[in-house]
Amino acid sequence: MYNGNFDFDGGARLEKRAREIDSVLAALPFLGESGEIARLFEAMRYSLLGGGKRIRPVLLLEFCELFGGRTEDALPFACALEMIHTYSLIHDDLPCMDNDDLRRGRPTSHVVFGEAGATLAGDALLNGAYEVMLEAVVSAEDPRRMAKAAETIARAAGAYGMVGGQTLDMENETSSPDESRLRRTDALKTGALFYAACTAGAIVAGADERGVAAAAEYAEKMGLAFQIVDDVLDVTSSEAELGKTIGSDTASGKRTYVDFRGVDGCRALALELSERAAEAVGTIKGSEFLVWLARSLAQRVK
Amino acid sequence: MYNGNFDFDGGARLEKRAREIDSVLAALPFLGESGEIARLFEAMRYSLLGGGKRIRPVLLLEFCELFGGRTEDALPFACALEMIHTYSLIHDDLPCMDNDDLRRGRPTSHVVFGEAGATLAGDALLNGAYEVMLEAVVSAEDPRRMAKAAETIARAAGAYGMVGGQTLDMENETSSPDESRLRRTDALKTGALFYAACTAGAIVAGADERGVAAAAEYAEKMGLAFQIVDDVLDVTSSEAELGKTIGSDTASGKRTYVDFRGVDGCRALALELSERAAEAVGTIKGSEFLVWLARSLAQRVK
Repeated sequence: MYNGNFDFDGGARLEKRAREIDSVLAALPFLGESGEIARLFEAMRYSLLGGGKRIRPVLLLEFCELFGGRTEDALPFACALEMIHTYSLIHDDLPCMDNDDLRRGRPTSHVVFGEAGATLAGDALLNGAYEVMLEAVVSAEDPRRMAKAAETIARAAGAYGMVGGQTLDMENETSSPDESRLRRTDALKTGALFYAACTAGAIVAGADERGVAAAAEYAEKMGLAFQIVDDVLDVTSSEAELGKTIGSDTASGKRTYVDFRGVDGCRALALELSERAAEAVGTIKGSEFLVWLARSLAQRVK
Repeated sequence: MYNGNFDFDGGARLEKRAREIDSVLAALPFLGESGEIARLFEAMRYSLLGGGKRIRPVLLLEFCELFGGRTEDALPFACALEMIHTYSLIHDDLPCMDNDDLRRGRPTSHVVFGEAGATLAGDALLNGAYEVMLEAVVSAEDPRRMAKAAETIARAAGAYGMVGGQTLDMENETSSPDESRLRRTDALKTGALFYAACTAGAIVAGADERGVAAAAEYAEKMGLAFQIVDDVLDVTSSEAELGKTIGSDTASGKRTYVDFRGVDGCRALALELSERAAEAVGTIKGSEFLVWLARSLAQRVK
């Protein structure tokens, strides 16, 4: 049976990991530049270093550690993943996309830097993410293995992953999707990057197929739970608590899990999914934190 | 002395190379998809397979061959480079950037697919480019060397390269740059990807430092000549000949080399630069085509 310890408190570890990632991100050389391109670097820093739970890079680091890998090997991939996540937020917030003005408690990138500035900041973060990973591949002891981790992340970010998901999401605004279509949308839009985080961490550590499969199972359940929790918070939270525009899904007519299952149904499903995520890794030694993380996610809407 | 043969006719070889790249691009698996994300794939294909001189991927293949590398090793990087070039055109044409409606003789991406569709098609092409390169790295005999080629391309595409150049270019519209600032802009906006094309080709082939330096020298001169020729054609050609909006630089008040040197001065400079590009590789055995290519560029505005 999997680890049934409900008393483990991972809060401090989550906080420590997130700050570890913050400090590596802040030290990325190309983010400290001044000179002629200063405004671009400022826009990149504004979004990348402007808070955020760092859940994806934390997952990558934790799965690397779970399978006996070294944190220093995983850090470039964790940073790259957060850069890719950040680029996607900047582009998704654009007026031609979701047209959001508030994110992580601050005005969105295009409000501060204009549409062109925001588009370019996103583009630069995306290219920068691959540059960081490729540097790590070039200097790795086992470049092929590290390239596999980077390839996993690239696939999850692209047309068959996050970009495809955002495409479906845009279409859903005008097409009244059913719940099955919503699931396919979220599996790409949110799920793909969770999948990349967990499996790339395992790959960096040199995990075997079974290990990578456990990481994938955990990711799948966590990714969906994460989206459902997000939808619930969109209707139950205040803007101050959440740091982004709330009720925006309802306002834009976008359908969410709450439309199909109600708030209570969503809570139950999030709880079930987080338990299944916990089960996926619970029998692996050292998985206490990941089990706690899955459960604490569902607790946010309890 | 470098190869002084002015009679070599590279036209057929350029055409053959370009069609070789077209067919590899058209066969990329994720561009043939139908299903729910069909509209995204259609937008990717529309811009990537909609013509274009393929000058950057041709340079990559030729520099690989010049230094004894295998074309099949270079092709994924050549395709990726064209995907990156295409993403940059799509984003640069957006209303919030250069707001161009015509490109390669057809309506631009955002005219056909909307702003969101164009932004996402660009994003997907960019991620796809890295996916193609990382696949090649994973399956390479020497993954570290191939990762170096990919890293070179990533650096040239990002904040210190093309994205930085587009940032300066946007600022130049309102700031009346001098010629030196214009050169710095173009060195990033156009030059960086030429640099990546030539040096990544050499790196894939396993060229030594001197070889990579020759490729870099050729690229620098070619990149600037290319931009100057572009500026001249913008004032001397018809829209039908060029397949894109002409006179757009003048209309937007953007300063170009023609403002600083006049059409004749630009012709002379393009000729000089193309000769210096030819010199950079002329002493290397098998460089006839690259010498011809440099010269034929300047001939376009003779």
